[in-house]
Amino acid sequence: MATLKKTNYRYRKYKTGKNNSKNKEIKGKTQENTKRKSSVRGGIPYKVIPLGGLKEIGKNCTLVECQDEILIIDCGFAFPEYEMFGIDVVIPDFTYLIENSHKVKGLIITHGHEDHIGGIPYLLKEINVPVYASPLAMGLIEHKLEEHGLTCERHTIRSGDVFKVGSFKVEAIQTNHSIADSMAFSVKFPGGHIVHTGDFKIDYSPLDGKVIDLNRLSQLGDEGVDLLLCDSTNVMREGYTPSEAVVRKSIDEIFDNTDRRIIIATFASNVHRIKYFVEASIKHNRRIAISGRSMENVFELAKKLGYLDDIHESAFVKAGEIKDIADRNLTIITTGTQGEPMSALTRMAYDNHKSVKLKKNDVVVFSSSPIPGNEKVISQIVNQLYEKNVKVVLASSMDVHVSGHASSEELKLIHTLLRPKFFMPVHGEYRHLAEHSKLAQSLGQPLGHIFLLSNGDALQLEGSMAHIIREYTSGEDVMVDGYGIGDVGSSVLKDRKNLSQSGLVTIAIALDTATGSLMAVPEMRTVGFVYELEHQDLLDEALNIVYNSIGKSIDAGALDEASLKKTIKSDMKSFIYRKTKRSPVIIPIILYV
Amino acid sequence: MATLKKTNYRYRKYKTGKNNSKNKEIKGKTQENTKRKSSVRGGIPYKVIPLGGLKEIGKNCTLVECQDEILIIDCGFAFPEYEMFGIDVVIPDFTYLIENSHKVKGLIITHGHEDHIGGIPYLLKEINVPVYASPLAMGLIEHKLEEHGLTCERHTIRSGDVFKVGSFKVEAIQTNHSIADSMAFSVKFPGGHIVHTGDFKIDYSPLDGKVIDLNRLSQLGDEGVDLLLCDSTNVMREGYTPSEAVVRKSIDEIFDNTDRRIIIATFASNVHRIKYFVEASIKHNRRIAISGRSMENVFELAKKLGYLDDIHESAFVKAGEIKDIADRNLTIITTGTQGEPMSALTRMAYDNHKSVKLKKNDVVVFSSSPIPGNEKVISQIVNQLYEKNVKVVLASSMDVHVSGHASSEELKLIHTLLRPKFFMPVHGEYRHLAEHSKLAQSLGQPLGHIFLLSNGDALQLEGSMAHIIREYTSGEDVMVDGYGIGDVGSSVLKDRKNLSQSGLVTIAIALDTATGSLMAVPEMRTVGFVYELEHQDLLDEALNIVYNSIGKSIDAGALDEASLKKTIKSDMKSFIYRKTKRSPVIIPIILYV
Repeated sequence: MATLKKTNYRYRKYKTGKNNSKNKEIKGKTQENTKRKSSVRGGIPYKVIPLGGLKEIGKNCTLVECQDEILIIDCGFAFPEYEMFGIDVVIPDFTYLIENSHKVKGLIITHGHEDHIGGIPYLLKEINVPVYASPLAMGLIEHKLEEHGLTCERHTIRSGDVFKVGSFKVEAIQTNHSIADSMAFSVKFPGGHIVHTGDFKIDYSPLDGKVIDLNRLSQLGDEGVDLLLCDSTNVMREGYTPSEAVVRKSIDEIFDNTDRRIIIATFASNVHRIKYFVEASIKHNRRIAISGRSMENVFELAKKLGYLDDIHESAFVKAGEIKDIADRNLTIITTGTQGEPMSALTRMAYDNHKSVKLKKNDVVVFSSSPIPGNEKVISQIVNQLYEKNVKVVLASSMDVHVSGHASSEELKLIHTLLRPKFFMPVHGEYRHLAEHSKLAQSLGQPLGHIFLLSNGDALQLEGSMAHIIREYTSGEDVMVDGYGIGDVGSSVLKDRKNLSQSGLVTIAIALDTATGSLMAVPEMRTVGFVYELEHQDLLDEALNIVYNSIGKSIDAGALDEASLKKTIKSDMKSFIYRKTKRSPVIIPIILYV
Repeated sequence: MATLKKTNYRYRKYKTGKNNSKNKEIKGKTQENTKRKSSVRGGIPYKVIPLGGLKEIGKNCTLVECQDEILIIDCGFAFPEYEMFGIDVVIPDFTYLIENSHKVKGLIITHGHEDHIGGIPYLLKEINVPVYASPLAMGLIEHKLEEHGLTCERHTIRSGDVFKVGSFKVEAIQTNHSIADSMAFSVKFPGGHIVHTGDFKIDYSPLDGKVIDLNRLSQLGDEGVDLLLCDSTNVMREGYTPSEAVVRKSIDEIFDNTDRRIIIATFASNVHRIKYFVEASIKHNRRIAISGRSMENVFELAKKLGYLDDIHESAFVKAGEIKDIADRNLTIITTGTQGEPMSALTRMAYDNHKSVKLKKNDVVVFSSSPIPGNEKVISQIVNQLYEKNVKVVLASSMDVHVSGHASSEELKLIHTLLRPKFFMPVHGEYRHLAEHSKLAQSLGQPLGHIFLLSNGDALQLEGSMAHIIREYTSGEDVMVDGYGIGDVGSSVLKDRKNLSQSGLVTIAIALDTATGSLMAVPEMRTVGFVYELEHQDLLDEALNIVYNSIGKSIDAGALDEASLKKTIKSDMKSFIYRKTKRSPVIIPIILYV
């Protein structure tokens, strides 16, 4: 991703004023549920404002605002959607935070995935805010800050820690997820008590032995929770998400049954799973090579943080030494499960990897599932691997991957332990949020206590009252393209799409200002339209159309720039469409000499 | 898709001469398998040449050539792959057929799906060839020919028919697939006997009662089959593909349990399934509205061909009358299962449909599965439907769709009945072909009798000998863009991709031919780069760069067009990258006045 510097390419001018007149309020007076503890605390009002992560998977960012203090929970980015041509990443719109920067007390991070930390550098360029994160998440954040040449006040926190951020009393609670050190937060403050689960699953046998702290969650439920914000990703999956122990078993089976090289691709941040690949390798007399820049970075970080303390340095082998190791004694751990064009696995598949040449019967394991949208490109890599005669193991045929998100039965458990007064499903597309609402209702949560927000909406709470303020602030996507943040809008994207479909034709003419006579042979250039060398006839004919357009304009006395451009554009457009059934972008340029 | 007319936009000049020198031969002398019948017929040589459908899903087209006669089996198109910007469809390279048009005796069609018939108009524009197809497939083909203003000799065939095409004796054998009238072909000719399954599954309880003719396939096995070409799509699915009867059961369940409107989206060509939706509707006192152009077309065709004979006209209701029907008495059958932007379902989801406004609690059924690559856009439609508060039924949560392709156990049955001497897996990506080869080996087929070809390769057979001639002819993708067939190549696509990423910047200058002095203010235009109005500063600065480039060129005496363009381009490129970290396409244009 682009390194970002302060330039004049920055925030677009956001439309203002919509916060006042257009607010639509949806009131939901609570019908007191006698079985549930009430936690009314004197009725100090507060707001919960998601800037990202609702009706989408990505760029999670939620604000809690009470008595002129704002706490931010997570600050992620999203990968560009289909047809966001040329966009690097998408971040939340931070306008509200910039405008209220004096209120912002801190940013607390549930875990180190990009959709929870990727937006931090872009936020820190705008406002100064202390960041609280687990050791691994903080390591990943620091790496980002370095890349962007930024720094900030940093606090490393651990599960079980209780700390103050302004008037917010935050408690970090151990959860399970596909990255180490994931946590939920309990946040107590004068207005009330909210719990944010972060991304989580319930794993009774996680690789690091640290089971989600159900006891503490249960106690918090007893203490009374006003609002629960809960991960919705896997709400549509019935039952329970399998434990990481399942992956361990499949990996053991693979190691037990092959004497060839094993190449395992997985997400770099899944430190515990990667550690298990290392341990299994050692047990099977294999040395381990790490391939792929992000995998190498996370590995270094994991070593530094002590996650790999009991692994001796001699277990590893450098890329250059791979060729000296017998096939049955080598494991390669790598990136590229999503078919990223420059990733190590893609380079291996296409024979472009410097130190790894795939061999017949190598075993290539995808310890991953496709992120929606990547299916086709991953499928191309898999076919390419088959052509190399390697054995490909996918999660669809063997349990070499499990999800990091809670399925419906796990969600029910969390709701039941916490018994929140109000509930806001988060982290999901609309259908996930809607199904999560149904799940809560099935457990007895009244519909009026469940709030489905959009990014930029605010949930206004006060004791046992809650209502949504629609479009409280901007919940728009802000697109990052190179150094430009928010300067590529829908009109530029539309132009890019048009250009991608049929390319363009430029026509430059030089006119005598006084007489309107042509001062040079008009010049036509095409890019992405047709292969010029093979279509000289068409281009010659098109040039005649230009002469006709000019002649017509002279006859009509319409030689001003706007009229002439309009005539040339329209004549050329219809000529080209008639001849080719294509609609390239037409750019007339007139130089008045 | 574009209507195609004869214009000068046609075939690119194909490279020739590669058929001779570069042929690589892979010989596979057969080790006579005594348990299998031999069908050596005097050793007359013949070739089987796939022009499309191998290492891809799409544009199936296979040639059988013997004694100066060519039979074509299927002629499909493929939808454009990722990054084939602006391409309408992809067709096989017909050069070999054009060059050998005098040999071509006929085209036989296994069924009416686009990947088996979509290429026909493009072939018929080039050569004249009689087409043999089932009533439904022929109806669909005729519709295409009409659109393209074409005609040809047509023969309607039915399962069980035996007919001659030149010296090829063709027998059509009933199969099951997700379209009516699908068939396999047995082709006997002086060189040997081949069987092509087409796309198929084994359905013991199909909706039309016509079970795949296993008895005849078994007899053909007894008669001796030299070469089997067999569908590989679902080889990686274990067990059996469920029967259409499963869909019937789920649909019944939905109809039994709702008194709201039911909107079912499915593939227009699945006539029997659609007929069942109609029957279920009638049984539940519902009238049926048909929505979506392709659905309406196929419906008219199906009526004309008698597939809907026992359904009374009064069962249907016109789009305009929908509003007069009570919710519990209405079924809408529609298209748009793949999230096509202009389809009826997409328009309903986004409130753009003329006659169908979705209502809360409408039931919307996707009787389909996502075609790989469409997952993300379908997911957007589903979220949109959830926002409309309709009940969405997907194949992932209820059996409202089954595949039309045979799973591994069904494939084993076909191999076992036919016991072919040689085997060529077809209709699949490379991994499917490779796994199909393994499946055949697991049944005792020697590896040397199995041939994995690429498009454009030829399998040369002669009695009990067979070998591959690699790159026998062109198996390349030919891209159709508007009227242009094959004129968009990789360089044009690369330009389109570059344009899509950061847009373009044009700089037009008028120079005095003699002195090199500027005759007008240079004009800069950008499209898809930045929003010009917000970045006037940048553009002004860029203009200064142009002046500098010209000045530099004057000083260096390098004012010829090539040198000057090069200087401007390179200076502008580095200026823009430094300022924005973007790389738009730069187009310098110089007019010498």
